[in-house]
Amino acid sequence: MDLTALEKIQYGVYLIAAAFDGKKSAFAANSIVQVSAQPVKFAVSVSKQNWTYELIEKSGCFSISAITMSAPFEFIGKFGFHTGKTFDKFANTEYKTFESGVPAVTQYAGAIFELKISGKIDVGDHTVFIGDVLNMERLSQETTMTYEYYHKIKGGLTAKNAPTYIKR
Amino acid sequence: MDLTALEKIQYGVYLIAAAFDGKKSAFAANSIVQVSAQPVKFAVSVSKQNWTYELIEKSGCFSISAITMSAPFEFIGKFGFHTGKTFDKFANTEYKTFESGVPAVTQYAGAIFELKISGKIDVGDHTVFIGDVLNMERLSQETTMTYEYYHKIKGGLTAKNAPTYIKR
Repeated sequence: MDLTALEKIQYGVYLIAAAFDGKKSAFAANSIVQVSAQPVKFAVSVSKQNWTYELIEKSGCFSISAITMSAPFEFIGKFGFHTGKTFDKFANTEYKTFESGVPAVTQYAGAIFELKISGKIDVGDHTVFIGDVLNMERLSQETTMTYEYYHKIKGGLTAKNAPTYIKR
Repeated sequence: MDLTALEKIQYGVYLIAAAFDGKKSAFAANSIVQVSAQPVKFAVSVSKQNWTYELIEKSGCFSISAITMSAPFEFIGKFGFHTGKTFDKFANTEYKTFESGVPAVTQYAGAIFELKISGKIDVGDHTVFIGDVLNMERLSQETTMTYEYYHKIKGGLTAKNAPTYIKR
């Protein structure tokens, strides 16, 4: 199988955040799609190795922030290549907290979404969560960064835990 | 809730195809993501109103074709705004048939994927299918069309059955 075929799938760049029991974390993600219009539902794939996974599982809620084209590589890297278990990703990060207690990164975000989990499916080393949108806000007119742009122009790498990681 | 926030999610343009009992069909889709790397799995959201939905359900297999930037609007429209129940979308369309019997559109395709369903989750008017990749082929170097490009530059509309359809 030609793994380079996988490069033909288009994605945006997002941050997924969650909180539980006073702890909060976030990670950079690309595998996000809207799966239903009425009500608005999203599917996201999250690695079981990811610390935010535990916070999503325990709280039953998470947020999505769509990251704009102007976000610097370092900003995305902060969320992509550290674990929230030992590193406070929210220090020096602009964010808001929804009424449910879910934090959402607002810095370099074109839109933010608050979601409550309504279903999930185990796909091996990842779980696909279905989230019902409780709230959504558009924060800017700027276009969301494509994963291709992050990868090719910004020189961004893919974390080993990502569902789209290709071992080369 | 500000529905325009939904415009901040990035997608590509794809065709999903399936066949059962001598009938085959395909439809234009954007809600596709890779959800696992080893093995490679995809999630796709399919409307229960869609005729291809029945063929996917009955055969347990489907294909994805990533559509290139050079595809004309009319080509995509052929798959997006007709039902395969009464209209042969494969007439005058270049495609190949995988060993499993699944057809995949090769015309204007940068890559094609053959998938076998390994899970699904009901999200109301849509079902999210998890597909394990059996085969994948890269057919060109061309970039996959983004949904934003299809929408803004090509003037493409969203079908009412689509998970990302917004009633205005």
